[in-house]
Amino acid sequence: MRVVILGSGNVATVLSCLIQNGGHQIVQIASRNRDHAAVLASRYNADAVSLTESQFAAADIYVIALHDASLNSLEKISGLKNKFVVHTAGSVSIDVLKNISSTYGILYPLQTLSKIAVQIPEIPFLVEGNNRETLHQIMEFARTLSNIVIPVNETERLHYHIAAVFAGNFTNHMYAIAESFCEKENIDFKNLLPLISEVTSKVNNNSPHDVQTGPAMREDIFTINRHLQALSTFPDMKYLYLKLSESILKFHEKH
Amino acid sequence: MRVVILGSGNVATVLSCLIQNGGHQIVQIASRNRDHAAVLASRYNADAVSLTESQFAAADIYVIALHDASLNSLEKISGLKNKFVVHTAGSVSIDVLKNISSTYGILYPLQTLSKIAVQIPEIPFLVEGNNRETLHQIMEFARTLSNIVIPVNETERLHYHIAAVFAGNFTNHMYAIAESFCEKENIDFKNLLPLISEVTSKVNNNSPHDVQTGPAMREDIFTINRHLQALSTFPDMKYLYLKLSESILKFHEKH
Repeated sequence: MRVVILGSGNVATVLSCLIQNGGHQIVQIASRNRDHAAVLASRYNADAVSLTESQFAAADIYVIALHDASLNSLEKISGLKNKFVVHTAGSVSIDVLKNISSTYGILYPLQTLSKIAVQIPEIPFLVEGNNRETLHQIMEFARTLSNIVIPVNETERLHYHIAAVFAGNFTNHMYAIAESFCEKENIDFKNLLPLISEVTSKVNNNSPHDVQTGPAMREDIFTINRHLQALSTFPDMKYLYLKLSESILKFHEKH
Repeated sequence: MRVVILGSGNVATVLSCLIQNGGHQIVQIASRNRDHAAVLASRYNADAVSLTESQFAAADIYVIALHDASLNSLEKISGLKNKFVVHTAGSVSIDVLKNISSTYGILYPLQTLSKIAVQIPEIPFLVEGNNRETLHQIMEFARTLSNIVIPVNETERLHYHIAAVFAGNFTNHMYAIAESFCEKENIDFKNLLPLISEVTSKVNNNSPHDVQTGPAMREDIFTINRHLQALSTFPDMKYLYLKLSESILKFHEKH
């Protein structure tokens, strides 16, 4: 298929690579910033245009990988009129596309994507279409990009996105906090990598509920107090330590 | 070496296995609950005794893997007098052993350990000794259990333990929350495993600070509000979502 990509950020960058690898032709990259579009377009011998110009090339599918906020003003982009359009956001309604075209849907990658990734990870695609025929077409396209393609409805997609924020974004933030703490205290964050790897490895074979360990899980008030005391010069960390320990206590009482 | 293990919980169970594999002989397991000791002891043809009996076998080293709170009343266990003793806690001072023996130290596994683990993970051991000679002996012993043996002081050990709570315990709690949410909303937690795997894989090659993604990182207030709204019937999750999003915003302003 001939593909136009709207966007030049993390999602657009990774999807472009997957789409090319899937045997399609990227004919154009459009971005708010034409220079950013040009950087990405040059990898695929594609055209680069500015979003506001809206001079889109003819293509079989238009993949919109823009910031969520921009998706509410797509109607201003006249070049999309009556094209086959999909957006890639987790929490934006399919309805933002309904006044643009009669063939539209969702191609949402349930994965953390960044330009600097060394290797493209396995990506489950959650897909929707405005009707059965469109859904079928989007699934066909998605299957050229990934082995995991899951038709969902809007509410399910939103719930997957929320679960992903906890399981992906918030966990990475925990790593970032730990790393920053290690740097400040002159200990080596690398020594935590076997632990990080093991916690993640366990989740593949066990319910995370069943393998929770740590002071809060043991209701080890002695250790929790030692840690809160040691964090007195790290008030933000201390606050999160307390809130998350309380959450573990409550979660495991209730279940 | 001939080894006596005090404790029969997660740490005692995994260490027993490592110690046996390291070519040592486990001669006795002591636990508050003699039956628990007996279960573990039977795997190694070892004796089982109750902690209160304090009838310890002769051994070259006594490994204390008891709850942190118990470590403050070790002096009551007369059978430890003048033995070579180590405890395995992250946040308990080496000084709890000083009135018991003149040869004592720490053998702290920086890892999440549970009885139900299929395979024993790589375990960095953080070690201390009451003097240089004891430290040397503990390092020799630890090296028969793991390739990663790191001499630390008490403050460093405490800081590693705190960082481990964030990087291990709290991340697992995020997985548990996401899993529970998926169950309640009838979506499949398994579809999040590629995301979980990728977030962890990235931390091996990148600073987690640099690869943070998600609505809070993008300051995507639109999506954050959508999520908070959708979590209105999950007040505990909603609260954590808000606190952790605020934390991400603050963390990335400051760094």
